[in-house]
Amino acid sequence: MKKIRMGMIGGGFGAFIGDAHRRASRICNDFELVGGVFDVDYEKSKLFAKNEGIAPERCYKSVDALIAAELAMPADKRMEVVAIVTPNALHFSFAKDLMTAGFHLVCEKPMTMTVEEALELEEIVAKTKLTFALNHTYTGYPMIRQMRDLISKGVLGTIQRIDAQYYQGWINSIIHGTDSRITGVWRLDPKHTGASSCMGDIGVHAFNLIEYTTGLEIKEVLSDLNPVKEGIKLDLDGTVLLRFHKNLKGVIRASQVCGGVENGLTIAVYGSKASLRWGQENPNYLYMLSDTEPTKIYKPAHSYNEPLAEAGQTMPCGHPEGIYEAMANIYKGTAKSIRGEEFTAGEFPTVHDGVRGMKFIHSVVKSNKEGNVWVKI
Amino acid sequence: MKKIRMGMIGGGFGAFIGDAHRRASRICNDFELVGGVFDVDYEKSKLFAKNEGIAPERCYKSVDALIAAELAMPADKRMEVVAIVTPNALHFSFAKDLMTAGFHLVCEKPMTMTVEEALELEEIVAKTKLTFALNHTYTGYPMIRQMRDLISKGVLGTIQRIDAQYYQGWINSIIHGTDSRITGVWRLDPKHTGASSCMGDIGVHAFNLIEYTTGLEIKEVLSDLNPVKEGIKLDLDGTVLLRFHKNLKGVIRASQVCGGVENGLTIAVYGSKASLRWGQENPNYLYMLSDTEPTKIYKPAHSYNEPLAEAGQTMPCGHPEGIYEAMANIYKGTAKSIRGEEFTAGEFPTVHDGVRGMKFIHSVVKSNKEGNVWVKI
Amino acid sequence: MKKIRMGMIGGGFGAFIGDAHRRASRICNDFELVGGVFDVDYEKSKLFAKNEGIAPERCYKSVDALIAAELAMPADKRMEVVAIVTPNALHFSFAKDLMTAGFHLVCEKPMTMTVEEALELEEIVAKTKLTFALNHTYTGYPMIRQMRDLISKGVLGTIQRIDAQYYQGWINSIIHGTDSRITGVWRLDPKHTGASSCMGDIGVHAFNLIEYTTGLEIKEVLSDLNPVKEGIKLDLDGTVLLRFHKNLKGVIRASQVCGGVENGLTIAVYGSKASLRWGQENPNYLYMLSDTEPTKIYKPAHSYNEPLAEAGQTMPCGHPEGIYEAMANIYKGTAKSIRGEEFTAGEFPTVHDGVRGMKFIHSVVKSNKEGNVWVKI
Amino acid sequence: MKKIRMGMIGGGFGAFIGDAHRRASRICNDFELVGGVFDVDYEKSKLFAKNEGIAPERCYKSVDALIAAELAMPADKRMEVVAIVTPNALHFSFAKDLMTAGFHLVCEKPMTMTVEEALELEEIVAKTKLTFALNHTYTGYPMIRQMRDLISKGVLGTIQRIDAQYYQGWINSIIHGTDSRITGVWRLDPKHTGASSCMGDIGVHAFNLIEYTTGLEIKEVLSDLNPVKEGIKLDLDGTVLLRFHKNLKGVIRASQVCGGVENGLTIAVYGSKASLRWGQENPNYLYMLSDTEPTKIYKPAHSYNEPLAEAGQTMPCGHPEGIYEAMANIYKGTAKSIRGEEFTAGEFPTVHDGVRGMKFIHSVVKSNKEGNVWVKI
Repeated sequence: MKKIRMGMIGGGFGAFIGDAHRRASRICNDFELVGGVFDVDYEKSKLFAKNEGIAPERCYKSVDALIAAELAMPADKRMEVVAIVTPNALHFSFAKDLMTAGFHLVCEKPMTMTVEEALELEEIVAKTKLTFALNHTYTGYPMIRQMRDLISKGVLGTIQRIDAQYYQGWINSIIHGTDSRITGVWRLDPKHTGASSCMGDIGVHAFNLIEYTTGLEIKEVLSDLNPVKEGIKLDLDGTVLLRFHKNLKGVIRASQVCGGVENGLTIAVYGSKASLRWGQENPNYLYMLSDTEPTKIYKPAHSYNEPLAEAGQTMPCGHPEGIYEAMANIYKGTAKSIRGEEFTAGEFPTVHDGVRGMKFIHSVVKSNKEGNVWVKI
Repeated sequence: MKKIRMGMIGGGFGAFIGDAHRRASRICNDFELVGGVFDVDYEKSKLFAKNEGIAPERCYKSVDALIAAELAMPADKRMEVVAIVTPNALHFSFAKDLMTAGFHLVCEKPMTMTVEEALELEEIVAKTKLTFALNHTYTGYPMIRQMRDLISKGVLGTIQRIDAQYYQGWINSIIHGTDSRITGVWRLDPKHTGASSCMGDIGVHAFNLIEYTTGLEIKEVLSDLNPVKEGIKLDLDGTVLLRFHKNLKGVIRASQVCGGVENGLTIAVYGSKASLRWGQENPNYLYMLSDTEPTKIYKPAHSYNEPLAEAGQTMPCGHPEGIYEAMANIYKGTAKSIRGEEFTAGEFPTVHDGVRGMKFIHSVVKSNKEGNVWVKI
Repeated sequence: MKKIRMGMIGGGFGAFIGDAHRRASRICNDFELVGGVFDVDYEKSKLFAKNEGIAPERCYKSVDALIAAELAMPADKRMEVVAIVTPNALHFSFAKDLMTAGFHLVCEKPMTMTVEEALELEEIVAKTKLTFALNHTYTGYPMIRQMRDLISKGVLGTIQRIDAQYYQGWINSIIHGTDSRITGVWRLDPKHTGASSCMGDIGVHAFNLIEYTTGLEIKEVLSDLNPVKEGIKLDLDGTVLLRFHKNLKGVIRASQVCGGVENGLTIAVYGSKASLRWGQENPNYLYMLSDTEPTKIYKPAHSYNEPLAEAGQTMPCGHPEGIYEAMANIYKGTAKSIRGEEFTAGEFPTVHDGVRGMKFIHSVVKSNKEGNVWVKI
Repeated sequence: MKKIRMGMIGGGFGAFIGDAHRRASRICNDFELVGGVFDVDYEKSKLFAKNEGIAPERCYKSVDALIAAELAMPADKRMEVVAIVTPNALHFSFAKDLMTAGFHLVCEKPMTMTVEEALELEEIVAKTKLTFALNHTYTGYPMIRQMRDLISKGVLGTIQRIDAQYYQGWINSIIHGTDSRITGVWRLDPKHTGASSCMGDIGVHAFNLIEYTTGLEIKEVLSDLNPVKEGIKLDLDGTVLLRFHKNLKGVIRASQVCGGVENGLTIAVYGSKASLRWGQENPNYLYMLSDTEPTKIYKPAHSYNEPLAEAGQTMPCGHPEGIYEAMANIYKGTAKSIRGEEFTAGEFPTVHDGVRGMKFIHSVVKSNKEGNVWVKI
């Protein structure tokens, strides 16, 4: 199938989320990165483009330049979609300009800085009928999709409580100065981050998962936010009470100062008949609790799952998706060896490992055949 | 950096492991698939090549044809490495021919059918000095690499017992005929599979992990294998007693008939001072047990890890590597939308989700600011 | 050591918490149940007393009668302590009368119906200097005591967030009428239960664990409670925002309508240096999370624990405390056999199991001695 | 109900297993300890008896003396059952003498030193028709009983593999001399321990659980045992291959040198339709795995369990049985306070905790009533 030609705004050297977008687009194999504006520093941007194997003439100085040049190209060469992976404050104007010019968009979250901007974008999408995908990554997990489908089929009975959490601890190293490797102080500056740090960066994921999995809308919130330390201008921690409708309440808890917590995003939806729980750190496990039956664990790659969950599944059951990365590590080591670069023993298995393996298999078969006796390898 | 030009033997439509190799090579981003022999049926092979966007003239009828044509190309266009992902019985002759012709190799396991073939390959590698990577995927996991490094530093004291397991249950559906979707009966035929089914297919992974993580060689084995059912010609289950040296023994347990077990590969190395345990289904957790200290859980993406473990790590801690696949699922849905294909609500987050998110963030900030009062979204 | 003579108010046939008090007092072996008022129905009370092997003359008609009669006995025969395990509304007046008469007390929670009663009891305790123990069971777990001691030593750094949860689902069967076995509708009646169902019954445990483990006082609360269903007069669900001091906030979540949740009491205290997490359903695991070190799991019966945690420990590590109940089940089956009552095969291991075991051990030793050969059992 | 009069041989000061027997018998509440021979040192034995509140005249010098004196007592006073909790080598002769004299028995395992002794005991039991209970504690767990019943109902289909493990690490501290607190060197002496250390002490539990849960008999074994260190005369580690019948094989792995493992007893039975797995360290979780359905977790105190599993259950679901020990710890602290002994703050909750709890409940109710506002506690 022909690949979709993709551009990228942001995501140059050292940008973790831009790299993630490129990897994701390579895994699904429907996109080809053909150009972009990778860095505000044009020289760095060009170096990065060269490194990625992108034609130099499609590494642009600005988004305006990109739009002008790409529109001038024939339709079958022109960029079709652009991924915006810049800091939050830049999302809106780039998105607006690109969609107005006719490009589909993938955009990092939070989508904009204000509600007004968000509504304006919504109007543009409606008018242009272009594809606009917001990168709420966690909705891509098979078991989150299974959760959504199970709930929509009514297996939980009446939903009676909803509870989502997103706890992290990494901002400790910034506010307490304990890890000089961590940068990102801009995240504590309202000018770059917007109205909120903790809720804007991670609380909104918990919010999104609630609405995604349940299909319900949160009607009202009451919040208590905490800057945690003197001199911090934004929330690093908070709790939000939720109201869905009469008799259904819930809570979102989010924090960036939970020392030692890695990426504690969890969601639980409790019903009169059964409940569902999921946590991002072990994304292949969806727990269904019931008052009358044994707890059930749903996992990906099983025929008992709904189609949307299975659509995202490419490995047999029991192989966590991360297995591709394990294999990629072996390919990485192999590439180093082929290129004549230095590498460590253990970066990829060699022919000697193959010999050992064959000896193992044949010794084992021999031992069994000869009546369970010891055989030398 | 210039990508390495890769070919592939096997891996056409429906081949799960070939697809995994392509995904892995795209993730690490050091390779570019330029040609191959994807199927014994040349028509299918060509269709597959077209689908993958490969130049038709580099989709070959046979390995011989591939070798001849590629050698005729200038060095800076020629294929550099070939991935062999065919059934086991074909590995050896293809590997031999390709290496002799000067190609680097990535080869699926088990490497060959016999020990003699394995030794012959080892000689060829030594002579040609080409890179030969055997795909023991599990050695690519960061925590397996951490385990290897911790053991080599001696933190376990004297190793006193080694225990590895590889249990699966999927062959039940074949031998008991319970799932017509599953094919693969060729695996029960010694002609295609070799001397062993269970030990050759999965036991050898347990064997490899033991030697990889400990740096020890298994000297002798005593095995008891089980075909489990009348009429089965190969082992589907077995236990192997291991001897390393005087006073160090161990065991490998492997089975394909453990009903309901997904992919139960585990390894445990027990020492006089401490022990290490790892399981493939939760590959980000490495447990260190000690008689005198709290159990410790090592996880990827932490500065306390050894360099080799961290080298394989691209996400911040707490994001299981599978997160790239989650994001790839979102890209997949986006691609469908851009191409005008059908898709389900929920395949990717839209601008409306963005609007909801912005409303959430601003309502939360407002509620807090106004003294923890209810605010409508 | 001489046992302390104990009486009991409430706890007759069918009373689960009274039975738990008696078991607990027998395990610690410092108490002897000598009398009480076990049921409002005097005939039932007498039958129960007989069953427990209690002297009939010490099974009293009322608490007043108990006080009068026991005070008339010589000091070395007289009841020393009384356990109050009645419904909530009766705690206060019985406690007041008994302490005034000079008896030590163990009292179920919640202690009283109102704050005024609670303060009055506090005064009486101060005046009489008698022992008053409130049964917050969860403070008896070794790992909760370890948590308290670790926090008091400052290992967490600055505490930055506190989060406790108590979720259950059993009240679903009452409000939705799905399990006729469950009684306890009185719990939904404010007259018997007091001002609150969910917060009074279980939220208060979460509250108690927070203050117990951290040594901090909660200064202010903001709550949102939910009766969940039309016609219910009390809260069955709720969230409570907590304020400890400037810059330290937290949350208590409690619910009785979380379908399928068994007894989900958890506490987490997050600090600038590290965090601690514990859950009641796996009470032997205390997790310490850190940004810079592997997660640690503290378990009972290890020399690395603080003295208070170890004081509660009687089994070697790895035997969950419930092992006594397992052994008690075997004793129970044995008792049935001795009394000539009916029992099922499998209620206790017999001499035949002993014979099998000896054959196993000796066959195993023989097989090894003779060079790892098969030996018949 | 009248309690059964019990005696005990062994189990004096410092004897951990004797203490466990007494606790277990007090929990089930069907037994009353009336006498015994608690120590070979008569003075220590008497002191121990006094401490336990046992009549001095029923603390005997020897088993012979006990038999003589008890037989001389009237039937309604006489000891009915005796628990033998001495070192292994003494079990047989005491058991023989006591049964011959007409006493029921509870006996620690391993039952005897030799197979011949075991068979002789079996004959005595058959002749006398007395109750003989061997203390295989683990068969008392509700979920082991549930496992047995599920298997006997055939839910697993054809059993295809059986795998049990019993790993511990504590003997490291003896053989490597790292923990001077640990005594028990007699366990390494064949005279006191018998033919085997590891297999006799713990392997036999794995063996027993296999036969208990499956109802199958192991027909043949092939073993490989390991003394692990120079100078050790017994096995501290080993693997045993098992044969049940044609096409059914299995393995027992046992070790006392697995550094840091606490009490790793596990059993797994794999079938053509489903499999069951249980581990002693989390005894309330029984996992049922299936190729076609979500994994199920069975837990105690649910109506879906079989009667034998539920018979052993006294707490509502979600309260691990160890909760009695938690409550016993609170009773312990209370006893210290009543006796005027020293105790630590935190050993039991006081009236002040009760006051705090009442304030919490009423503040929470008030906050909610007044429209979710902050209320001071």
